[in-house]
Parts: sequence; structure tokens; C-alpha cells
Amino acid sequence: MSAHPRLSLNQATIKHASLQEALDVTAAAGYQAIGLWREPVAEVGLAEASARLADSGLRFTSLCRGGFFTMPEGPDRRASIDDNRRAIEETATLAAAGAPGSTAVLVLVAGGIPEGSTDLIGARSRVADALAELAPIAEAAGVQLSIEPLHPMYVSDRAVVSTLKQALDLAAPFAPEVVGVEVDTFHVWWDPEALDQIARAGREGRIASYQACDWKAPLPADVLLARHYPGDGAVDFASLTRAVEATGYDRDIEVELFNADIWAAPFAEVAERTAESFEAAVAPHLAAAPAPAVPVSPGV
Amino acid sequence: MSAHPRLSLNQATIKHASLQEALDVTAAAGYQAIGLWREPVAEVGLAEASARLADSGLRFTSLCRGGFFTMPEGPDRRASIDDNRRAIEETATLAAAGAPGSTAVLVLVAGGIPEGSTDLIGARSRVADALAELAPIAEAAGVQLSIEPLHPMYVSDRAVVSTLKQALDLAAPFAPEVVGVEVDTFHVWWDPEALDQIARAGREGRIASYQACDWKAPLPADVLLARHYPGDGAVDFASLTRAVEATGYDRDIEVELFNADIWAAPFAEVAERTAESFEAAVAPHLAAAPAPAVPVSPGV
Repeated sequence: MSAHPRLSLNQATIKHASLQEALDVTAAAGYQAIGLWREPVAEVGLAEASARLADSGLRFTSLCRGGFFTMPEGPDRRASIDDNRRAIEETATLAAAGAPGSTAVLVLVAGGIPEGSTDLIGARSRVADALAELAPIAEAAGVQLSIEPLHPMYVSDRAVVSTLKQALDLAAPFAPEVVGVEVDTFHVWWDPEALDQIARAGREGRIASYQACDWKAPLPADVLLARHYPGDGAVDFASLTRAVEATGYDRDIEVELFNADIWAAPFAEVAERTAESFEAAVAPHLAAAPAPAVPVSPGV
Repeated sequence: MSAHPRLSLNQATIKHASLQEALDVTAAAGYQAIGLWREPVAEVGLAEASARLADSGLRFTSLCRGGFFTMPEGPDRRASIDDNRRAIEETATLAAAGAPGSTAVLVLVAGGIPEGSTDLIGARSRVADALAELAPIAEAAGVQLSIEPLHPMYVSDRAVVSTLKQALDLAAPFAPEVVGVEVDTFHVWWDPEALDQIARAGREGRIASYQACDWKAPLPADVLLARHYPGDGAVDFASLTRAVEATGYDRDIEVELFNADIWAAPFAEVAERTAESFEAAVAPHLAAAPAPAVPVSPGV
């Protein structure tokens, strides 16, 4: 079994796997890297999770996720900021435990408009406030916060950060190694400014992570589960991947799929299919794709 | 029964009504204006539809819809252009038959990415090509084409025009009275640039039509039917309506609701509920809301 050397399996793709199962399946499928979620890490505890990650020999590419800090000041907001502080510590610990080349990236999903409110502009301003509070903590921990713009269909209930431009504007007051942005094809592919904003993100040194995921209509009844293997849908991975690579981005690339059918399939099969889809749809557009392992026949 | 003097009932809100039923229900509910769809007009024929519209005494605010011209050159594309040419003629005829103050606006929904393609950029460029072909025809007919940016969740299968900025960029080569844009709160409310682009649309004289419609999570299984009465969801009608009014926009405002529950309700009830929701959620933010009809009690 093999997988592209820059491919990282985001654990959400095999959502029902425990941490140990995820590490085992990922390594067995020939991956060199994995992106983790907080819940499976918490199940075994951070110290144990770090030890198991170290044992796996995998690089750590990101922790999902912090954020959800759009509520007004009060106890709920304080609890959210505290939780993000813990997520920053977890990210630093896991990145240190991962194999060399690990990246201490904490993915931030902003959160939606507070229940019963229509104040989208206010909710967005509170994202900026939260970043100002968390950035010094992240900097001290050597962690890069990665603001993830989510598709605009999630704006009311999940993420008021909807475009790469908006994420970059939010990141602008901070050093790029402290606050970067997530470029997830599923969330940004529709944007007429996607390529320009990827180039800008590159110029500003802010691409914390690139994620490859496809979009296909019609959407499922639960639009959270609308993510598909690269190549199965309408996303143009050529233009997006080339744009990211043109910035000099050289980190691992995650595939993170929320999809009921994929979640119902055996973990090993999903890991293999993910590697195959990445190889076919994304790898050809990488800046320095490794030469295929064609056996040389001497004398021919 | 009464409705705000600037409120227009888009016929899709009472989708299962015939043209005659729609005209009767709209007039009986005290509206002064209606937006029509091509199919119910075609059922009775354009001449008969125009006569009935004239009899109703209602203003005509727009015809839905033209567009769906993202396919490459060939017979399908020619058929689409021909169909749009007919839609332009229908718009001119209906606008002439409507009461004074009618607007000859043809709403354009661009169409999605052709089946099996991932060439979003190419599909978008073909929208520009189609506009170049249709604009002279519209101009000769005295019709304003109104490019409608649709919510990005419809980009792959319905409309590759996803933002107001993109619609305005597409409209830029043409005179504003020939090519304008649709501002539908449901489609644009999430956009961090919505207010700025509304202001720009105003400066450029391109707001062909303003439509008020709400957004609520979770989305229904069929995301086409996710539209709600103004005030029932997360849209901030205050900021959006004020931004539109600040441009000097003084045309009628349509409410167009695709929603299975609304479609299942009696037409008259829907017309009344639409007028009430508009009065509560939109009317207070209009530039020159008429004074409420409060009876004056002399001597008090």
C-alpha cells in the first residue's frame, strides 16, 4: 500500500475510528501524515495520544478544531476562549510528538450567528475580537491558528467566515506564522476570486493548510455531509492546486470528507480510495510531483 | 386587504396558481404589482396573458426567467439564445400591458457547469458571451436584463454567477438600462461585500430589482426550497434594505418564495402572509415609508 508523500488523511474521513484505529489504518495504507480531531484525542488523553502518534511515525498536520466564538461577551464566550486555549496547547503537544515535518496548525471554524439574532456583521466582528485574544497565546505556544472560511451555505449556523478574502482580512493584523488561513477546495472553489485570493494568501505567507475535497450536486439532505472524494464532482483541482503550489506551499495536503456513505465503509478501504483519488485528481497538479516509479529496463 | 404600495408578489410564491388565479389573488390582497413566470404566461399565450394583466390593473415588475446559457457553442446553445430572445419579447409585451410604473425586467439565471465538466471558469466566460449576444436584442426591445447572482450553493447545477460583484463585473460592458443586476437578499445576505456591492450597483445605476426573502438553517432536503418569509430567519433586512434604498432605488420590491409548505397553503393566505411579513421586516427600512394610516381623533 502506498499514498502520495504529501497526502495527509484527516481523521474525520474515517470518523468512526478511534485514535489508535486511525493511526494504524493511516500508516498501514502508506500515508506519512495525519490530521487529528480533538474528540478522539480526548478519549485517550493528550499524553497518551501524543505517545501513540509518536509511535505511529506519522507527521501531524493539523488539529480540528477551535473557534465557535461568535457569541457576545459573557460566560459562554469565556468558556469558548478557554476551550480554544486548551486546543492551542493540544496542537503544540501533538505537533511536537509527530514525525519531523509536522505542522502545529489549529483549524478555526468561526461559529454561526447566535440563535435568534440577525446580526451577522456583529458576529463577524466578534471573530476579530477572539483572534486578538488568542493570537498571543498561540504565538507563545508556537501554534499557527488557521482561519477556515466555510462555504456560504453554512454562514448562519456554523461559520460566519465565508470567503478566503474575508479570512485573510481577519488574519491581516497578525503575523502570518501566528494566524494563517485554511484553503479547502470544497469551501472556496465556487468563489470567482478564489485564485486571486490564493495568490494573495501566498504573498502574505498565510496558507496554513490546503485541503482537497470535491463538491457534487444535488446536495444530500444534511448539507454538512456533502463532501466527496477528489475527482468525483465539479471542482477544478487543476487550477486550484496549481494556484496553491505556485505560492510555494510545500506542506502536506489533507483530505477531509464528511459523507455518510464514506463513514459507513471500512476504514482501510476509505484510506485506500482517498489515496487513489488524490493521486488521480490532485497529485498531477503538484509543483514537484515525484517521478512515477517506472522500472528502468537497461538496454531498451 | 392591503399590501405595501411597493410590494410585488412574485408568482413563484404561489407556484401552483394559474396566471388568472395569481392575478386575482394578488389584486384581491391589495397588491399593486406582480412578477410573472414564463410557464403560466405560456399556458394562456402571450397575447391573452397581456390582456389579463392589463385587466388586473397590476404593475408588472419582472419576468422569470431567461439565462441557462453556460453550454459550449452548438445546437443547445443556439436553442438557449433563441429562447432568451423570446423571453425578451415576452418581457417587453408584458411590461407594456402592465399598469403605469411597470418595469421591463427579465431575470437571468446563468445556468450551472455543464454535466460532466469541471470548467467553472469556462462556464462563466460563456455567460459573458451570451450577454454580448443578447444585450443588443434587449436594448432594441427596451428590456433590462437582470443578472441574478445565486447563492454559491447553486453554483454547480444552477447558476455560475455567485456574487453581486461578479454580476456587476459581467454587466459592466453594457449600458445600465440594458444590463442590470438582481439583488435578492436570500442569495447575497451572507456576502461580506454585500453592502459595498449594493452601493456600487447603485452608483452604476444597475439595480434592476430588489427581492426580499429570508434564510433559515437547517436547510430543507431540497435546497431549492429553502426560502422563507422575510423576518422568519437570519437575514438582516435592516442593513440590506437601507443599503438598497440609499442608492435611490425606487422600484417595486418582490417577494419570491420557493418553499414546499408555502406552496401547499391557500393562495390568498400566502399573499396575505407575504404582505404582513414585508410590512414587518422590510417596510420599516424603506427610505420613504408612507405614514401609517392612523385615524386622527380630533380633540384628543
